[in-house]
Amino acid sequence: MSKDAPKTYAVIMAGGSGTRFWPLSREMSPKQILKLIGPKSLLQETVSRMPGVIPRDQIVVVTSQQQVDIIKPHLLGVLDSNILVEPMPKNTAPCIGLAALHIQRLDPEAVMVVLPSDHRITDLEKFQSVLQTGIDLTLENRSLVTIGIPPTRPETGYGYIQIKPENSNLPDGVHTVETFAEKPNRTTAERFLQSGDFFWNSGIFIWKAKQILSEMEEHLPDQYAQLRLIDQADGEDDYFSVLSNHYNRIRPISIDYGIMEVSQSRIYMLEGAFGWSDVGSWDELFRIHSKTGMQNVTEGEAIYIDSSNNLVYSPNKMAAVIGMEDVLVVNTPDATLICPLDRAQDVKNIVEKLRKDNRKEYL
Amino acid sequence: MSKDAPKTYAVIMAGGSGTRFWPLSREMSPKQILKLIGPKSLLQETVSRMPGVIPRDQIVVVTSQQQVDIIKPHLLGVLDSNILVEPMPKNTAPCIGLAALHIQRLDPEAVMVVLPSDHRITDLEKFQSVLQTGIDLTLENRSLVTIGIPPTRPETGYGYIQIKPENSNLPDGVHTVETFAEKPNRTTAERFLQSGDFFWNSGIFIWKAKQILSEMEEHLPDQYAQLRLIDQADGEDDYFSVLSNHYNRIRPISIDYGIMEVSQSRIYMLEGAFGWSDVGSWDELFRIHSKTGMQNVTEGEAIYIDSSNNLVYSPNKMAAVIGMEDVLVVNTPDATLICPLDRAQDVKNIVEKLRKDNRKEYL
Repeated sequence: MSKDAPKTYAVIMAGGSGTRFWPLSREMSPKQILKLIGPKSLLQETVSRMPGVIPRDQIVVVTSQQQVDIIKPHLLGVLDSNILVEPMPKNTAPCIGLAALHIQRLDPEAVMVVLPSDHRITDLEKFQSVLQTGIDLTLENRSLVTIGIPPTRPETGYGYIQIKPENSNLPDGVHTVETFAEKPNRTTAERFLQSGDFFWNSGIFIWKAKQILSEMEEHLPDQYAQLRLIDQADGEDDYFSVLSNHYNRIRPISIDYGIMEVSQSRIYMLEGAFGWSDVGSWDELFRIHSKTGMQNVTEGEAIYIDSSNNLVYSPNKMAAVIGMEDVLVVNTPDATLICPLDRAQDVKNIVEKLRKDNRKEYL
Repeated sequence: MSKDAPKTYAVIMAGGSGTRFWPLSREMSPKQILKLIGPKSLLQETVSRMPGVIPRDQIVVVTSQQQVDIIKPHLLGVLDSNILVEPMPKNTAPCIGLAALHIQRLDPEAVMVVLPSDHRITDLEKFQSVLQTGIDLTLENRSLVTIGIPPTRPETGYGYIQIKPENSNLPDGVHTVETFAEKPNRTTAERFLQSGDFFWNSGIFIWKAKQILSEMEEHLPDQYAQLRLIDQADGEDDYFSVLSNHYNRIRPISIDYGIMEVSQSRIYMLEGAFGWSDVGSWDELFRIHSKTGMQNVTEGEAIYIDSSNNLVYSPNKMAAVIGMEDVLVVNTPDATLICPLDRAQDVKNIVEKLRKDNRKEYL
């Protein structure tokens, strides 16, 4: 056990498949490794935002068996021993639990910063400063810290965090949490936006590993028991079969629903005004790119005639677009998608249909 | 000189490039060799409609130097000696003159049936019967025969033929021509359609070779003189340089404008109610295919969600179409076109832009 200050680990959750970027995202080409903006993948960006706050050898990545080989090239400086494999997806709480046990073995007092692998952040300095504030808070308190994004539109695709009325004891941008709200309908989202005390739930959390494990023991005892059995097999010859066996028995649950919404601990929310986007869909990608109201966004080469506000992703093929507005065109070597930008969410229905028809070549 | 009945030759004009089917049609993949409907190219269909009226060894094909090798595989049974090469395009009158000189050498009394290479005809029996009527008419008279298509819509993309009031001496479906009209504007086209005495100019003509040459001598003396010089070099060692030299000096002109509109001869128009289409553009192709008002036409494989009345041509790539109506999507190995069907005519503007930018790889 170290007598130095507790170490801080990053836990990057990199197991998602990102069906909403089909046909570009596939099972073997998940969203986090796509170069959707600029020359680096979202995962590479996520990793490279850590140094300055967390050294690369304290970055833990959780991914799936299927994806582990394809994401490794995006994990510059991450230790192989810090790449954890989930045998099957069980939503965020078990994933975070698995990482917490791993980190606790490395440093029982360690702080962990949990991050999605596929978000975009434009203001690195601000981001790192918010993380540092969160880390400092968890060192001083037995608290859970989450980061809320100041909302800019009545988004119905995100969960929200409501803060408590101003507390003058807290520094600027630090709040205590009143409640967590699931994805709202449109009317509710508009009310949230106007109220000024609701923030988007970024999925970024900061806490001590031992603290989140103690929360799990209290609020998710069944999941915690399985995780403990897995942890006891660490270093044993049969570790992987124990992992697979017991992880399989875990009931999937999100960290928000399983812990955050029910925890009795003090929960802080830090304002994350650092140019965040979840890059959650093709239309969100268009929104990030769009600088004026009348432009086409093009990856690859395109000829436009009487066309505006289109997103054309066609890196290896000339696209000719005539008389189209607000349309998404995506070309990959084996598929083409055409869709109004405001229906980009429905891309997942295409993936669902392909799955139902067992068209593995397109999944 | 033969003492038998004069022979009949077909002249298939196969030199066009068909830019309106870009990105499928290219300089080296012109419209006539595309398999736009069914397993045969339009040119193969044109050739195979002849036997029964004209034997294959009496089919003459005029094409360009550039295209001669690529169209040969579509000319089953056509004699190599009957494939004529235009050194450069000069519109239809010089092309027909060149073929007429060739045919006249084979049989001075020969009848020739001039046909575009890239049209579609669904009623073969009716088509052949109309051709035979025309051939018989030219054998009896020093007349020019043209075929008019009963119009079904106020099309502004075609020339029209106006017939003279009913003449009871003529068989059913045979008319004398009052006038030829150039492509009308919308209002005029609607008047034409309602009048009942205007027909679409099909570009199919029937006449004796010596008759059309005599018309040329009278109405296109400059062009005729050059053609004569070319004809005199036939069989000589320097034929191709003479051809190239003198053909180059010919002013381009259409047979309609140069002869039909000014000829003093009797011109007959036969009604061509044989399921004709010029397959002139992507939207015309959609019109031919469309059997009901609400269907998508698909070449290749496509998944549609909330989409109707689209034409998706994507033979080697899965197309996923969400929330689109009346849209054209075309995939070729190197290009994708997206366009409302009613703007399919503007595809030529894309080709123009590519030409201006010297993007030969897409032409």
